[in-house]
Amino acid sequence: MLLTILYIIAITAEAMTGAISAGKRKMDWFGVMFVASIAAIGGGTARDMILGHYPVGWIKHPEYIIITCTAGVFTTLIAPWVARNQRLFVALDSIGLVVFSIIGCRIAMDMHLPPLISIIAAIVTGIFGGLLRDLVCRQPPLVLHKELYASVAMFSSSLYLLLHWYGIEETIAVVATLIAGFSLRIVALKFGWSLPVFHFDQKQIERQVRTKIK
Amino acid sequence: MLLTILYIIAITAEAMTGAISAGKRKMDWFGVMFVASIAAIGGGTARDMILGHYPVGWIKHPEYIIITCTAGVFTTLIAPWVARNQRLFVALDSIGLVVFSIIGCRIAMDMHLPPLISIIAAIVTGIFGGLLRDLVCRQPPLVLHKELYASVAMFSSSLYLLLHWYGIEETIAVVATLIAGFSLRIVALKFGWSLPVFHFDQKQIERQVRTKIK
Amino acid sequence: MLLTILYIIAITAEAMTGAISAGKRKMDWFGVMFVASIAAIGGGTARDMILGHYPVGWIKHPEYIIITCTAGVFTTLIAPWVARNQRLFVALDSIGLVVFSIIGCRIAMDMHLPPLISIIAAIVTGIFGGLLRDLVCRQPPLVLHKELYASVAMFSSSLYLLLHWYGIEETIAVVATLIAGFSLRIVALKFGWSLPVFHFDQKQIERQVRTKIK
Repeated sequence: MLLTILYIIAITAEAMTGAISAGKRKMDWFGVMFVASIAAIGGGTARDMILGHYPVGWIKHPEYIIITCTAGVFTTLIAPWVARNQRLFVALDSIGLVVFSIIGCRIAMDMHLPPLISIIAAIVTGIFGGLLRDLVCRQPPLVLHKELYASVAMFSSSLYLLLHWYGIEETIAVVATLIAGFSLRIVALKFGWSLPVFHFDQKQIERQVRTKIK
Repeated sequence: MLLTILYIIAITAEAMTGAISAGKRKMDWFGVMFVASIAAIGGGTARDMILGHYPVGWIKHPEYIIITCTAGVFTTLIAPWVARNQRLFVALDSIGLVVFSIIGCRIAMDMHLPPLISIIAAIVTGIFGGLLRDLVCRQPPLVLHKELYASVAMFSSSLYLLLHWYGIEETIAVVATLIAGFSLRIVALKFGWSLPVFHFDQKQIERQVRTKIK
Repeated sequence: MLLTILYIIAITAEAMTGAISAGKRKMDWFGVMFVASIAAIGGGTARDMILGHYPVGWIKHPEYIIITCTAGVFTTLIAPWVARNQRLFVALDSIGLVVFSIIGCRIAMDMHLPPLISIIAAIVTGIFGGLLRDLVCRQPPLVLHKELYASVAMFSSSLYLLLHWYGIEETIAVVATLIAGFSLRIVALKFGWSLPVFHFDQKQIERQVRTKIK
């Protein structure tokens, strides 16, 4: 119940950020609705298709598509307000990330898949929306570059699995995961925590190789 | 029957436009066949995968792949002719769009999915081929930018659903949808009708924000 | 058995080339693991999703994901060594291509799909990993541009199907296909064999058209 409410808030927020990305590429209203929808529910769709978990979420609940399309078009009217409240959207996106992770994890658990696959299902649910949005808008995929993003999905789903393992009551497990995952993301943003970056510079390496040969 | 003939004409035309896109990127013959095929049958494949409607269309009818690959390679031989007859291809593509919409809608209806999902199935069938073609050829996805394209799929499938609802005989429903959808697309192209564009200009908005603060 | 060992070697090698691509785009460790994994097992995943062959390979064998992620992160530590041994990786990638083709073909055969679909399943298994890697890393998709790559998958799977048709014993069919497919790829690379390229130059064609009108 709590999860459903938070899920609806999350897909609304993700749809709005998707609409902004579409606006940066000067898309028309359909493009806005499309990018808003894949940003919001593309992650869950990818997860369901990979797991063979049919029917896909929004086909069982077509109202989610109505929410994302409405949020997308609505964003075109209040774009300056959205731009001025980026902090709010970062917070909503962070809640969304943890909510998506819990839902993704739980669907895999209900399919009796092993823990590692449940964690991957959480990550796919959490990141594929943003990944598809960036692909369609021809932007570098943010989630693969910096910030703790997929890591938060991994942490949240691992914690949730662990709490289940210890037989913690469902509501408590959800709330605890939400608080811990959200805090990790916000603290990571505040202090600029991120994973190490791998920079492969072909030319530099070729120079090194040449130098060694000399 | 009529639909099957029009479908084969449509995938041939889409395959040829896909081959042209591949040629603009200097792909080899395999690339040409690949882009031709995803442009022509990628929409239906995406629809079937999202709906969990297995086996996917061309797996049941492998002859469709032979058609798209042949059309693709054939296009490399008659490229100037294709370039000179863009109007013909716009017309064929418009017929294809409506045919794809009707087929997509009908498959969802046969799966007893709600009307909204049938309309989305029509849109996915209609636009994902072009979307995947543009992604693989690294072009801005045309269908998200201008012209009434997805809107035509939405209109056609809604009309088709409505005619069904009123118990209109199948052949009449198909022909009426074909005529209406095709006309809408051609009239929209002629008069330059399009959906409003959402242009989100980060810098301009930041200026506005700053001005207000002053 | 032989195929399993070669498969593990192949996904390790593909994961390492995926990690290098991620490094060229300065991705973080998660991005490296992600690109490494889709480069290695994205082809098989796409094949299983298109065929409706659930559960997808790595969900049945989560250890494959552990291998690809480990190989990806490990690559960040030995990048110069990888760069210096490109020949080795070309050889491993070539073995991988034939192994992927045989596995893809066999899965389609086990599903009693027609030969043409088995060949397409082989091609999808062989090329989609590289295709998805290049899409996510925003590079032109190599497999569509030059070298005999998909053609090797087509040749290998056709040969394998043919040997099966003639009732050749499984191990012999696998080994013969491996040797023939690998040889074709290496010989093609050595002599620069490739498919004809289709270059569609809009401007040139427009000039021709104009000249004719004059």
